[in-house]
Amino acid sequence: MSFAKSGGKSVGIVTPQKIHFDTPLTLECNRTLPFFDLMVETYGELNADKSNAILICHALSGSHHAAGYHSSDDKKAGWWDTFIGPGKAIDTTRFFVVCLNNIGSCYGSTGPTSTNPETGKPYGPDFPLVTIKDWVKTQVMLSDYLGIDIWHAIVGGSMGGMQAMQWSIDYPSRLKKCVVIASTPKLSAQNIAFNEVARQSILSDPDFCEGRYIEQGKIPKRGLILARMVGHITYLTDEAMRVKFGRDLKAGKLMFNYDVEFQVESYLRYQGEQFSERFDANTYLLMTKALDYFDPARGAIEDDSLNDSLSDTDALRLALANTQCKFLIISFTTDWRFSPERSQEIVDALIANGKPVSYINIDAAYGHDSFLFDIPTYRQSVFNFLTA
Amino acid sequence: MSFAKSGGKSVGIVTPQKIHFDTPLTLECNRTLPFFDLMVETYGELNADKSNAILICHALSGSHHAAGYHSSDDKKAGWWDTFIGPGKAIDTTRFFVVCLNNIGSCYGSTGPTSTNPETGKPYGPDFPLVTIKDWVKTQVMLSDYLGIDIWHAIVGGSMGGMQAMQWSIDYPSRLKKCVVIASTPKLSAQNIAFNEVARQSILSDPDFCEGRYIEQGKIPKRGLILARMVGHITYLTDEAMRVKFGRDLKAGKLMFNYDVEFQVESYLRYQGEQFSERFDANTYLLMTKALDYFDPARGAIEDDSLNDSLSDTDALRLALANTQCKFLIISFTTDWRFSPERSQEIVDALIANGKPVSYINIDAAYGHDSFLFDIPTYRQSVFNFLTA
Repeated sequence: MSFAKSGGKSVGIVTPQKIHFDTPLTLECNRTLPFFDLMVETYGELNADKSNAILICHALSGSHHAAGYHSSDDKKAGWWDTFIGPGKAIDTTRFFVVCLNNIGSCYGSTGPTSTNPETGKPYGPDFPLVTIKDWVKTQVMLSDYLGIDIWHAIVGGSMGGMQAMQWSIDYPSRLKKCVVIASTPKLSAQNIAFNEVARQSILSDPDFCEGRYIEQGKIPKRGLILARMVGHITYLTDEAMRVKFGRDLKAGKLMFNYDVEFQVESYLRYQGEQFSERFDANTYLLMTKALDYFDPARGAIEDDSLNDSLSDTDALRLALANTQCKFLIISFTTDWRFSPERSQEIVDALIANGKPVSYINIDAAYGHDSFLFDIPTYRQSVFNFLTA
Repeated sequence: MSFAKSGGKSVGIVTPQKIHFDTPLTLECNRTLPFFDLMVETYGELNADKSNAILICHALSGSHHAAGYHSSDDKKAGWWDTFIGPGKAIDTTRFFVVCLNNIGSCYGSTGPTSTNPETGKPYGPDFPLVTIKDWVKTQVMLSDYLGIDIWHAIVGGSMGGMQAMQWSIDYPSRLKKCVVIASTPKLSAQNIAFNEVARQSILSDPDFCEGRYIEQGKIPKRGLILARMVGHITYLTDEAMRVKFGRDLKAGKLMFNYDVEFQVESYLRYQGEQFSERFDANTYLLMTKALDYFDPARGAIEDDSLNDSLSDTDALRLALANTQCKFLIISFTTDWRFSPERSQEIVDALIANGKPVSYINIDAAYGHDSFLFDIPTYRQSVFNFLTA
C-alpha cells in the first residue's frame, strides 16, 4: 500500500491554456452562446491509452489554477495545491490532471466580463445564467477536445462535487470513479437564504449599475465585500472562529465606535476586501444561482418524467439509478454549510440503487473549508480510492 | 397547582407613558447624557407592599410595547403578547408587569433619533454607544421612580436575558427571581461576525450619510434590509426553513433571472422591507455593539479586578458569585444563535457557586425565535417559577 505524502512536491510552474470552442452551445435557459473559451491547466502526463485522466471541478470562487505556480516569483500556489502534485492525494506521477475554469466565471473562460459579440461590449448582466448541467456539457466538449473518452475519475469539492455528481448521471459511461466532497444533493432553504443575502448585497450596491459597472468604470466593491463576508461565515464554524479569534480585541480594549474592534471583524473585512479586488460581481450572482438551481433529483426545468409526488429520497434514488461509476463521498464533521447528513443522503440513494459507494465523514475542525486542508485521513482516502 | 393558559386573555388597550429623568447619566463609554426619557408600559396592578412587580427586558428590535393593543383598531399586539396577560405565563392578574424601551433604541426613549440638546439636531451617530450595564443602570433609576425596591422577577429573552443576568450581578439585592431565556454569557466570534456583516451593510449604504441620514432626509433602507435578512437567518433554523419554504418556487418554475424565485427569498426580502420601514439604522448599529460588548465575566472595560489569566469558566463563576436571586435558565434545542450549550455555561457557573438554579432545554422547532412562541412546557415552566 502506498501513502500520499503531506506537503509532497509541487507540480512546479504551470501555464494555463485558453481553448476556443466555436460550436454554438445551447444552455438550459434556452439561450445560446455562439462560441466560448475555456481556460485549462493540466498536470502530469496523459498515458498512451488515455486511461489516467482526472478532471477537477472547481467551487464557487475557484479557477483552472488548481496547482503549482504561474512563474518563479509567484507567491501563491493554485487553490488545491495541497492535494495535487507528485506523491500527493491526487498524484501527478500517476495521473494526468485537468482543471478548467467554468463558463460564467471570471478567470479567463467566457463569462460576464467577456465581450458580447452582439454588442462589442462586456456581456455583464446579459450573460446567460448557466447551470451545473451546462458546465458538465462544456466539460464533455473539453473531454472530446482532449481525446479523453473515459475519465479515470472526476473529483470536486462543494459546487465541484455537484458537477462530479451530475457527470455520473448525465454521462454515466464516461467516468470510472466519482469523488464528491463536502457537497449536497441540493441546497437547503437556509443555503438559498444565505445566497440571497449575498446577491442582494451586490444588487443593491449603487455601483452595481444594473450589472453594467464595467462599462461605467465602476466596481460594486461594497456589495462584493458583504457577499464574501457572509459567505465566509458559512465556510467556517463557530468553534473554528473561537479558536482562531475568540473575543480578542484588536486594540486590547473597547473603543466605543464602529471601527474594527474584534479580531474576527478585522479578518472578515480583510477577506471581503481581498475578494472584491479579484472577483466579478455578475459572476458571483451567477454562481450562487447555479448553486440554488442544482437539484438533479428533480431535473432542472422541463423534465416532467420525474413525478412531483415522489419523495425527495425516491427522486434522488431514481436520478442516480443509471450511474455506472464507483463513488467516494466525503463529508466533514463540522461542515454546517453542507453537513454530513447531506452527504449521507447521496450515499443512501446510491446504496438503495446497489451502487458501489464508499463514504467517509472526516473529523475536521474547519467546517466547509476543511475540503481545502491537507488532513491525513482525508488525503489518504482520496489517494486510495483513485489508485485502488 | 395552577396552569398557565394558552391564548389566555389580552391585557386589552394599553397606553405607554414617557418618563423624563433629568439626572445626568454617565455611561460606560465615559460620556454623559444630561437627561433622558424612557418609554414605559405597565400591565396589571402593583400590590400594596410593592412585592409583585416583574420587569421585562426587551431584545434587539423590541420595545416597551410587550402586550396588548394601543387602540381598538390596532391589529398588532405587543411583541410578547403570547406570554403576558391574565392567566398567561406572566399572569397580569397576579403581577404588575413593567416593560420599557431602552435608551439608544428608536421607540420613544432617548436614542439616536432624539434631538441632541447640544446641537438642536438629531443625535444620529453622535449618540453614545450604550452597554447592557448602562441599560440596567437606567432600569434601576426607573425602579426608584416607580418605588420598586425589589423586583419579584426580572425576565428577558436573548439580549433581554443579558440584562436580567446583569441585574443579578450589579444589583443582587434588588431582585428575587431572574429568568434568562435563549441567552448567552457572551457572544461567540461567529455571533460577532454576523453582527459585523449587519453593521457593514448599514455603514456601507451610501444613504447612511455617515449616520446623518435623518438630517439629509434619507433612509439607509438597503443596508437595513440586508442587516435584517442576515439576522433573520440566524433567528430561524435550517429545518424550520425547510418545513416552511423547502425549495418551493414562487412562479412554479425557474426564471433564470435575479427576481424572487424561491419562497424563502420572498420571505426574507419581505421581512427586510418591513423592518427597514420601522427601525432606525443608528439604533441597529448600537444594539449590535451592545451585544458584542456584553461579557459580564470579564467586566466591561476598566475593571482590572478580574484577572486575564482566569479561565472563561472561572471568570463567569466569579462574576455570578454574589448573586442573591433564584434563577430560571431556559434554552431551546434548535437555537443555533445562542445554543443550549451557552445556557449550560450559565447554569454550570451558578451551580459551581451553589446558587439556586433551574434549567430547562425546551424541545422547539423555531430556533432562536422559539422564545417568542407559546410552547406549553415553556409557558408552564415560566409560570411555575414566577408563582412558586
